[in-house]
Amino acid sequence: MKALVYNGPGEKSWTEVPKPVILHPTDAIVRVETTTICGTDLHILKGDVPAVQPGRILGHEGVGTVVEVGSAVGTLSTGDRVLISCIKSCGHCANCKTGLYSHCLGDEGASGIGWVFGHLIDGTQAEFVRVPYADNSLYKLPSEVDDSQAVMLSDILPTGFEIGVRYGGVKPGDVVAVVGAGPVGLAAMMTAGLYGAGEVVAIDIDEGRLEKAKEFGATSVVLSSAEDWRERVLSMTDGAGVDVAIEAVGVPETFTMAVGLVRPGGSVANVGVHGRPVDLHLEDLWIRNISISMGLVNTDTTPLLLRLVAQKKLRAERFATHHFDFEHIMDAYETFSNAAQTGALKVLIER
Amino acid sequence: MKALVYNGPGEKSWTEVPKPVILHPTDAIVRVETTTICGTDLHILKGDVPAVQPGRILGHEGVGTVVEVGSAVGTLSTGDRVLISCIKSCGHCANCKTGLYSHCLGDEGASGIGWVFGHLIDGTQAEFVRVPYADNSLYKLPSEVDDSQAVMLSDILPTGFEIGVRYGGVKPGDVVAVVGAGPVGLAAMMTAGLYGAGEVVAIDIDEGRLEKAKEFGATSVVLSSAEDWRERVLSMTDGAGVDVAIEAVGVPETFTMAVGLVRPGGSVANVGVHGRPVDLHLEDLWIRNISISMGLVNTDTTPLLLRLVAQKKLRAERFATHHFDFEHIMDAYETFSNAAQTGALKVLIER
Amino acid sequence: MKALVYNGPGEKSWTEVPKPVILHPTDAIVRVETTTICGTDLHILKGDVPAVQPGRILGHEGVGTVVEVGSAVGTLSTGDRVLISCIKSCGHCANCKTGLYSHCLGDEGASGIGWVFGHLIDGTQAEFVRVPYADNSLYKLPSEVDDSQAVMLSDILPTGFEIGVRYGGVKPGDVVAVVGAGPVGLAAMMTAGLYGAGEVVAIDIDEGRLEKAKEFGATSVVLSSAEDWRERVLSMTDGAGVDVAIEAVGVPETFTMAVGLVRPGGSVANVGVHGRPVDLHLEDLWIRNISISMGLVNTDTTPLLLRLVAQKKLRAERFATHHFDFEHIMDAYETFSNAAQTGALKVLIER
Amino acid sequence: MKALVYNGPGEKSWTEVPKPVILHPTDAIVRVETTTICGTDLHILKGDVPAVQPGRILGHEGVGTVVEVGSAVGTLSTGDRVLISCIKSCGHCANCKTGLYSHCLGDEGASGIGWVFGHLIDGTQAEFVRVPYADNSLYKLPSEVDDSQAVMLSDILPTGFEIGVRYGGVKPGDVVAVVGAGPVGLAAMMTAGLYGAGEVVAIDIDEGRLEKAKEFGATSVVLSSAEDWRERVLSMTDGAGVDVAIEAVGVPETFTMAVGLVRPGGSVANVGVHGRPVDLHLEDLWIRNISISMGLVNTDTTPLLLRLVAQKKLRAERFATHHFDFEHIMDAYETFSNAAQTGALKVLIER
Repeated sequence: MKALVYNGPGEKSWTEVPKPVILHPTDAIVRVETTTICGTDLHILKGDVPAVQPGRILGHEGVGTVVEVGSAVGTLSTGDRVLISCIKSCGHCANCKTGLYSHCLGDEGASGIGWVFGHLIDGTQAEFVRVPYADNSLYKLPSEVDDSQAVMLSDILPTGFEIGVRYGGVKPGDVVAVVGAGPVGLAAMMTAGLYGAGEVVAIDIDEGRLEKAKEFGATSVVLSSAEDWRERVLSMTDGAGVDVAIEAVGVPETFTMAVGLVRPGGSVANVGVHGRPVDLHLEDLWIRNISISMGLVNTDTTPLLLRLVAQKKLRAERFATHHFDFEHIMDAYETFSNAAQTGALKVLIER
Repeated sequence: MKALVYNGPGEKSWTEVPKPVILHPTDAIVRVETTTICGTDLHILKGDVPAVQPGRILGHEGVGTVVEVGSAVGTLSTGDRVLISCIKSCGHCANCKTGLYSHCLGDEGASGIGWVFGHLIDGTQAEFVRVPYADNSLYKLPSEVDDSQAVMLSDILPTGFEIGVRYGGVKPGDVVAVVGAGPVGLAAMMTAGLYGAGEVVAIDIDEGRLEKAKEFGATSVVLSSAEDWRERVLSMTDGAGVDVAIEAVGVPETFTMAVGLVRPGGSVANVGVHGRPVDLHLEDLWIRNISISMGLVNTDTTPLLLRLVAQKKLRAERFATHHFDFEHIMDAYETFSNAAQTGALKVLIER
Repeated sequence: MKALVYNGPGEKSWTEVPKPVILHPTDAIVRVETTTICGTDLHILKGDVPAVQPGRILGHEGVGTVVEVGSAVGTLSTGDRVLISCIKSCGHCANCKTGLYSHCLGDEGASGIGWVFGHLIDGTQAEFVRVPYADNSLYKLPSEVDDSQAVMLSDILPTGFEIGVRYGGVKPGDVVAVVGAGPVGLAAMMTAGLYGAGEVVAIDIDEGRLEKAKEFGATSVVLSSAEDWRERVLSMTDGAGVDVAIEAVGVPETFTMAVGLVRPGGSVANVGVHGRPVDLHLEDLWIRNISISMGLVNTDTTPLLLRLVAQKKLRAERFATHHFDFEHIMDAYETFSNAAQTGALKVLIER
Repeated sequence: MKALVYNGPGEKSWTEVPKPVILHPTDAIVRVETTTICGTDLHILKGDVPAVQPGRILGHEGVGTVVEVGSAVGTLSTGDRVLISCIKSCGHCANCKTGLYSHCLGDEGASGIGWVFGHLIDGTQAEFVRVPYADNSLYKLPSEVDDSQAVMLSDILPTGFEIGVRYGGVKPGDVVAVVGAGPVGLAAMMTAGLYGAGEVVAIDIDEGRLEKAKEFGATSVVLSSAEDWRERVLSMTDGAGVDVAIEAVGVPETFTMAVGLVRPGGSVANVGVHGRPVDLHLEDLWIRNISISMGLVNTDTTPLLLRLVAQKKLRAERFATHHFDFEHIMDAYETFSNAAQTGALKVLIER
């Protein structure tokens, strides 16, 4: 079969590799029909994630059809059309039992991290993929949900919802600021209404993204490169600050913006993947009764989000801006890498 | 009457000042019978809190007797023996209605901070004190609770419990590390059991304080100046880290220690008052699903803690290490300022 | 002034009575501009609420203008346009401090019940009304909210939201059944979306009300007089039952319906005012892991709901089906008492 | 092997039966070393649980050693000493994913009930038992925990803690009443302190049990056959009622007692297994803001309770009042059935 293989920093190829096989009775093999590229894949390609070894097949998002199941797989059969979650979870370790699937201790070549695809084991940017703990990591898809919707549930929609909206503790009527209107920030905006957010303020330096933000649930937009964003946002809240500030970029400046926007008693939910430390101004913050959360998605909300997509309450298909077939996956990477020019949110790679 | 007056950085005096009078119908005047000194008072005296103006009477902790009430005070009468909470709360602003008393917006010469005594209005290190919003700020004392117990409920016990134990989300069976075994750290240790903490690990650089810690609920102690504290604590938790780490010192090093001790999915509760920023290593932390909380005490748990003291479930009197009369308050400051030598936890100043 | 006075079972009159005066420094006098009638008023008129003595002015809902304030009222001034909450709360008793305003222990002629207007003290169906604890019981109205919207916030919207939606623990994606499509049931339907309800199933015996239900947020309707309601609802949930069942009628049959609809692990929120006991089938239920809640509204969500009305996120005005002036209040009662014929939801009585 | 077989109402025998074998790759076979009898077994023997067919081996509690594992069992090996939980959970159905293990939908001969041992499949009162979903249903035992402690974790300790203390929402300082001082009531008393209960009031008609209750954490006892229990309990709470009332008997009278004891805003946690309906006085209760919970244990707290037993924070061994060997299991039934005379709490049957 063919797959997108990481060959070390800056190097990747769409190349012939062996087809995966069942290694454990809880595994399944899935024929991938749709996959996509995540910002994390670009980080890996830069060499920023040393745990990823050359030879690794990338990708942790996908939709496909089960072609083989291990002897202990109880809920899936050959022929089932499934969503592949970006997180593997054994379902019975101490962390899984408390819903902390992101830190599943199950022993699939990883220790203490639920994100393994395209990282510690081969991933989904391939014609076939081996899925560990298939009963917990795959979700049967109803016919109302098409591939371009479903693939948004592998990672970005649960990430924006769980790590942004839920960790942030969004409540009915809250004013929520989202710093960064990329795919994950937009996912947070799209799902903030599920807890009744009263106002969703999108903040970005790109006018095109802010236009997009309005389609994804933002009720106001702030172009932080052109206006005094803090003044603007505080003025919307009688000077107090927002209830929840969601960081969805991953650099120190945007984290500091988020912290600076939140009211006493509010919360900051960091969703961004960071590469550098940030100054936390505890000399001002200690007295403000705020909390700061962060983390990797657990995907415990995937069944819920899937139902909402089926009910057309979440328009997941809006993230899909570009389509490629598997043979043009290198073009898909090119388009996604130049999102500022191409306007790409999620690029789909389809059979 | 006499009072302890701040005269600018480094300067204080026990001196004659006018007796306070009722300014608002919701005020009460309390004759102070016991007061004490907080680490914050030492900060003020150093000039670290510019909002405190020369001429201000210090102190935000106390027990006394009501001698006069305003026309709108409904629940208190002259002669009532009362606990004075360190936080004033109007009871009807937007923040008070959600229990965020620490950021009461009521307009007693303050804006957006519930801590006003010895800060924005005159405090409790005086023979008499005016208490705003008396119905919400004073608590009638049952006869079973003596002054040396009650005065610990003005600030340190609710602070350790609310900002440490509750903000930290301590649950039954949790392993809780408390960095810093000063009065507020000890208050966190003493109250961690109220949510069923399984292990309480005290960490400090002072052996004497660690000895004390064992009397306040610590089940293990770690002398961080002499041993590899991180190794020690991780070894108690199969390498995973503690469920809750409580910072009770207020310097960057101890905050970083607390963050470094917590397991994936755990929480860090900052109780310390900080004067400098701290490096937050988001490049490591973003993936760890932790939360970090901080804040000023709300004192919403004061009635509960008072009941537990009356039931002898909390031995509040253990904090009182030294006793002085009002005329020797300068000696009390001396003793408290040199806690490392004197072994002072809380020094009581009594009529 | 004139007022609607209860003269004993079956007897009421719109009659001249003395204008109210300030009795406590925390009181305000409000000139009533809009009031309305609640199902509870009809119960009182039948003699079902013996605590209500002849001579009592009825009514617990209203909008008006402050004409006088007591000396301890801090947040309101003469001329302020205000919403009158159906619940009085002192703000400092043990129950108020935990947000249980419905059982405020403050001593305004009542003991242990926050609902006093038109019950234990004179109410709002009058030209003027005395409001105890004005700082906590009145809410200043922004100009965007008109009287016909605001008066729905005195009781029905917070009741449906707090006792139905919040006590029921509605979560994103939940299937919520509301038994009874009267004003309070409709209020629950209208606000279920604030916690992301996926489906809202309205159940009633009146087709007209079910038509209304669709305008208030119901996504399906079940005519329980004509179809096998249980079969219908179970079939919407793969046989499991709904996540939350809200009872909004107040008779044993509808309570039993609600209990019979809920899935294992789900919850039943009783909003109805009941006059008789009900058989609870614990022999079937003990194993089903359900919870059953009930209660009087606390109105702690009034500020939130007011903001959502101002933002046009809640269309409160839809409840107002009929309008009368004060001199025609007896006609208003007639119309409201015959809701099945008149189609009345809420009848407004306006200056 | 030998086992205790149900032969229809009133009939049981300790008799030779075939040894169980692995049926599914997720199964394990456990050699039972300690088992015990539950009140539910007595109900079954009376014929009250028609789902139990003649020929069924009874028992759902036990400790033993793994002698064989299916090919998909990942966390256990032959020779592991294990606790057998009374609840089987597949770990990946919709209910398991939300922690509602008691209603696991996995298909082991059952539908929608996690309690299968000695009910829908053969149980633990046997020399060997087949355990479905072994990874989720068995817990490796540390050497510090002996069999007589561990077997209390199969059912009664998690039941009292989860369905009594946690469903009841016990908080620090709460006054908790437990109606019924049998094994499960005592388990609730023993674990109420894990959430900081301030007072634990045991209510029973048997003086001997009340004496026991004091050893299990009760701070007061009320002999309901001899004194005005309601008056007594209300007088402990200034007339308001208790914060949490736990029903641990299972008859209408005790349920009604529990409901009658709870304060406005409090909760009733039903733990008892009921055989008859009960009158719920909604005409009084609708206004009291109480909640009523009930259910089958989920055992999600088993790991926590096991740790607390290992730490000697819970003295689980205190439940074991009588010991028998397997050949005398009929005597064990006799002793347990006559608990009023024998004083039996839990009778242990050991190899």
